Formats: sequence, C-alpha cells, structure tokens
Amino acid sequence: MKTYKSIRLVSRPKPGPITTDLFKVEQKVIPTPGPEQILVKQTHMSLDPAMIGWMHSDTESYIPPVALGDVMRSSGLGEVVASNHSDFAVGDTVRGMLGWTEYLLSNGKGLSKLPPNVDPEMALAVFALPGLTATQGLFGFGDPKAGETIVVSGAAGSVGSIVGQLAKANDLNVIGVAGDQEKCDWICNELGFDGAINYKIDDIAVRLKELAANGIDIYFENTGGPIQHHVFDRMNTHGRIVVCGMISDYTSATPSAGPNWIPLIKKRISIRGFAMPDHFGDAAQLTEKLTPYVMSGKIKFRTHVLEGLESAMDGLNLFFNGGNRGKLIVKL
Amino acid sequence: MKTYKSIRLVSRPKPGPITTDLFKVEQKVIPTPGPEQILVKQTHMSLDPAMIGWMHSDTESYIPPVALGDVMRSSGLGEVVASNHSDFAVGDTVRGMLGWTEYLLSNGKGLSKLPPNVDPEMALAVFALPGLTATQGLFGFGDPKAGETIVVSGAAGSVGSIVGQLAKANDLNVIGVAGDQEKCDWICNELGFDGAINYKIDDIAVRLKELAANGIDIYFENTGGPIQHHVFDRMNTHGRIVVCGMISDYTSATPSAGPNWIPLIKKRISIRGFAMPDHFGDAAQLTEKLTPYVMSGKIKFRTHVLEGLESAMDGLNLFFNGGNRGKLIVKL
Repeated sequence: MKTYKSIRLVSRPKPGPITTDLFKVEQKVIPTPGPEQILVKQTHMSLDPAMIGWMHSDTESYIPPVALGDVMRSSGLGEVVASNHSDFAVGDTVRGMLGWTEYLLSNGKGLSKLPPNVDPEMALAVFALPGLTATQGLFGFGDPKAGETIVVSGAAGSVGSIVGQLAKANDLNVIGVAGDQEKCDWICNELGFDGAINYKIDDIAVRLKELAANGIDIYFENTGGPIQHHVFDRMNTHGRIVVCGMISDYTSATPSAGPNWIPLIKKRISIRGFAMPDHFGDAAQLTEKLTPYVMSGKIKFRTHVLEGLESAMDGLNLFFNGGNRGKLIVKL
Repeated sequence: MKTYKSIRLVSRPKPGPITTDLFKVEQKVIPTPGPEQILVKQTHMSLDPAMIGWMHSDTESYIPPVALGDVMRSSGLGEVVASNHSDFAVGDTVRGMLGWTEYLLSNGKGLSKLPPNVDPEMALAVFALPGLTATQGLFGFGDPKAGETIVVSGAAGSVGSIVGQLAKANDLNVIGVAGDQEKCDWICNELGFDGAINYKIDDIAVRLKELAANGIDIYFENTGGPIQHHVFDRMNTHGRIVVCGMISDYTSATPSAGPNWIPLIKKRISIRGFAMPDHFGDAAQLTEKLTPYVMSGKIKFRTHVLEGLESAMDGLNLFFNGGNRGKLIVKL
C-alpha cells in the first residue's frame, strides 16, 4: 500500500515568523477514486502571501480562514493519475485549490484543465493568482495612462513584478521598491523598470524625489511599512492607490499607523483595497487581457523552487524575510 | 462719499484658533461701475470649513490658497445696486465668490442670478456648497442602498445634516456623530436620523455597536479625529468611505495618524477623497438631483447668523469649537 503526505493547520500563527509547530504532517494511504471521482497527484504547489491571512481567524476577511485541523489551503497543479470522471482523463494536468497534500481525491469541482504544453511554472507564476491579481489591480483599479508614474512596492514579488511590466508596456514611468540590491538590479535590468529603490539602505524620500520628479500617479501597495508614507507624501492630484498586500504588517502584533487623510481631500486621491476572490468570475477576461503581453514577451518571470511538501512550512517565511527570488513554488 | 469695508488676508494661520491679526480690515470709497461692469452690495456671506484650507499655503490643494494681501475668499449673495451690464439689472440677486467685502465691482463673470423669491438663507444653506457637496459625495461616491447603514461625522454641520437626510430619504439606517447634546437631539428629532453619538461624552465604540449592529456600509467623513478609527473598525465588506472634511486636523501642528490599511484588503473597502471644485461642472445635474428632496420637505436646515463683516474673522473658530448651530452665514 503506497502512502502520501499532507499537512494540516493545527494552530493559529502568533506575531513573528511562521513556526512548524503550527502544522501537523500526516502520512496516509493513497485512496482509490469512487464513482465520478479522480485521483490527483500534485506536482507543483504555489506559495502566496495571501496564505498568511488565511491562517488567521481573528478578523473578518474575504474568504473564511483555514479551519484548525484542515489541510492547509493553497493552489497548485497536479496530474490526474486515476479517473472515474468523464471530464478528466489520466494524464490531464489540472489546476485548483489542491492544498498542502501530495495526493487528493476530487469530484472535479473547482478544478480546471490546463492546455497541453503549458509550462507548469508559467502557469503558476503568471496565469494564476499573480497575473490575474496584477491585471485586475492595475487595469481594474489603477487606471494607468501613458506618461504617468507608478510606484510598486514588493516590486520583485510575484504580483509586483507583473504589475511593473504591464505598466511599462503601457508607457508609464515605473519605479519599484524592493528589499535588496539583487532584486533592484533584476527589476531594472531584466524587467525594464525605470528605477528601483532598495528600502533597506536607500533614503526613500530622496530617491522618490529623483525617480518620481513629477510626483506619483499610481501606488500599487504590496507591502505596507514606511514606504507607504513616503509614497503617500508624493502622490499627485487625482492619484490612485491600489492596496493589494500589506505583508510587512501581517505578522506584527500592532499594525502600523496609516497616513492622515487630509491629503485625500486636497489631492482627491482614491484608495481601493481588493482581493481576488471577488474577481474570480472575471478570470477569463483577465486572462484574455494578460495573454497578449505574455505572448509578446513583455512579461518575464522567475521562480524560486522549494523541494518537497514539508518545505512549504518554513517556506512561508521567505515572504517576510525577503529571501525569495521569484514566484515561490514547491515541487512535489 | 460713501465708504465700505473689506477684509484682506495678511498672514497665514498657525496651529490653534484663527486670530484677527491674520486679517486687515480696510475702509474704501464705494466705486462706480465702468462699462460692462456692475456694483454688487453683498447681503449674505457664507462661512465654510473649506475656507480654513484656503488660508494655508503650505501644501498643494484643489484651488490655490488666498494670496496674502488679497480679499479673503468666500461665497455669498448680493444685490446689484448699479449696472452697466446688459445681463444684470439693478435689484437682481447674484451669487458667486464675492469675498469678504461689503461691495464689489464685477464684470459678471462667475456670478449667477438667483431666481426671484428664493430665500437667501436656503440658497446658501442648501442650494450652494453644502447641498452640492452632500449630493456629490453621497450619490457620486457613497453608492447608498436601502437598508444599508451610514455614519456621518460632523452630522449637524451644513454638509453632514444634508447627507444624513438624503440617506434617510433613501431608506438607510443613518447615524450621526456630533459634539453636543443639542446637536444630537436636533438631528434625531428634527432631521429624522436613526441615532446620534455625542463624541465628547459617549463611548463611541459601544454606541456604534448598538446603533450599527450590522456594521457600517458608508462612512461620510467630515471631521477626522478618533471617530474615524472607531467607524473604520466596524466597516462592512465592500464598504465605502467618502472623505469630505477633516476639520479636527486642519489646525493641528501634527495631523493625527490614519488607520492601518490591512482592513482595506480584507474587507475590500474603498476610500475616496473629494473636493467640490472638481465637480462644479456638474452643478446643474447635482441641483436637479437635490431639488426633489428639498421640494418634498425632506431636507430641513437651520442657519447660524452672524452680524456684520468683521464677525467673519472670529466666526471661523465656530467650526473648531463646535459652537455653530447650523449653516454659518454673515449678514451684512
């Protein structure tokens, strides 16, 4: 009897790094699909900053938290290895919220088939949460116009890197904020950003003044932290702020203060928070919007691959310590 | 030779109350209109919280500050007392940015004629900045729906009182925040608000929990201050925050901190700052939207009338100390 591993969430995170004792690793016998069921062997598991939020239960959010005792929620790709379902054949690649598990049974609900010959890493790094989020956030809320200036925090992250490239493809002046020199070099030299700020060593205010000499029209917020205040101070009249992530505050005991609202009136600024589950119904249109950019080579990506299911637990900390180099994927 | 008085701004406000030494009162000879000019005798001068912002020069804003040495800017009503202009006859009532002056010459630009028999106090308290601002803010940005809950700060103020009544007429649960019992009684007993919070003595969090048991869908922000944080904490998913005024911060040396942005993501909240000059082009449509509410008796108002041009200077402080009882008007 062959076995497989899955990981359950058994405890809520406390302020500070994610620790492995929040989870329980289990070994189980690989099941056989019943009528209208398929057995999926997961091959690629996506790690996303949003998962940190799903582990908390304390506040209302856009989807329910992962219940204690449940397999940790995540999206991923897998191969159909046994099928009693007319829509799925053995060998099909499927995508969906597979969770932290090597195998799973499914009735096919919530799964979509990937076309053949799609690179699985591109599927997770671009044509999944990161690309859809970037497309919805930038075009749905950011209203980018050629010649405007956009600042993207978390610019080397999976979402930020796509936002910046989409903005560049639309002739904006694109400034990225990241946490080390390698990331700053990557977004400028490889992705074509116009400028980068290393928030750990640069004087953010001085650099923003240089790089956004005419002020900032769009702020795409992925991180929170002091960057937010510096960017806020340089927003232009009728500026748009799109709040996609606040990773720097997700694990702090006391969330940091936001900016005072007087400039919102003086400059008629809008701030819009969003989360993708509201827009999953638009996934087809978003993909259609994104595809030409990818096909014309305007969206580059890189992946940071961890090996083995258990690497996911500590892997989440890479979002906080900035250690990831590209879209985090766990290969199983 | 008859003379008249006008008041110039000669110094920028410092933190704290507005002092009369910021202004210079001048006595001049009443002029005679030249070709295509009219002479206007101002009868009613409007005092609005926005004027505090116009007196400051330090930050970018939606209209230029009043230049030092210029007559202080304000809107008002006046009577045409001499005319060489084909569009205006002696006896016409005109409205416009007349400024702090008893008389002024005009070529008619920026002035509009009031229909006969319009009550001048209603013209300034409803069919002017307060009513247009309330209509634009609530319907243009607040997206009110029957059954939702709205909280209005500065609820007994000229804008807030109209916002609340418009919301009530659209079957929302309307909660007003004001600074004393008389104002709370007025908005509930006279204007039909569903509840009122006296922020100076009530426990705001407890009262919000009682009055907004199902959370808050719209926050119409006129004041800033601690109310903002309590309301923000109870915002519902997809809530809308309309930022119209921040009077409690206009004179503080250090603006107070705003709320952290994480809930903007979790609850997909939007925040929209606005200022009416952006929407003056829509004044006709806004008036058309507002008129049926007024005509059907759903918009009540009261005025707080000061006497004489010089009373305007100290009158501005009524916005900070909450001493005003209704729309502030200076009768000349």
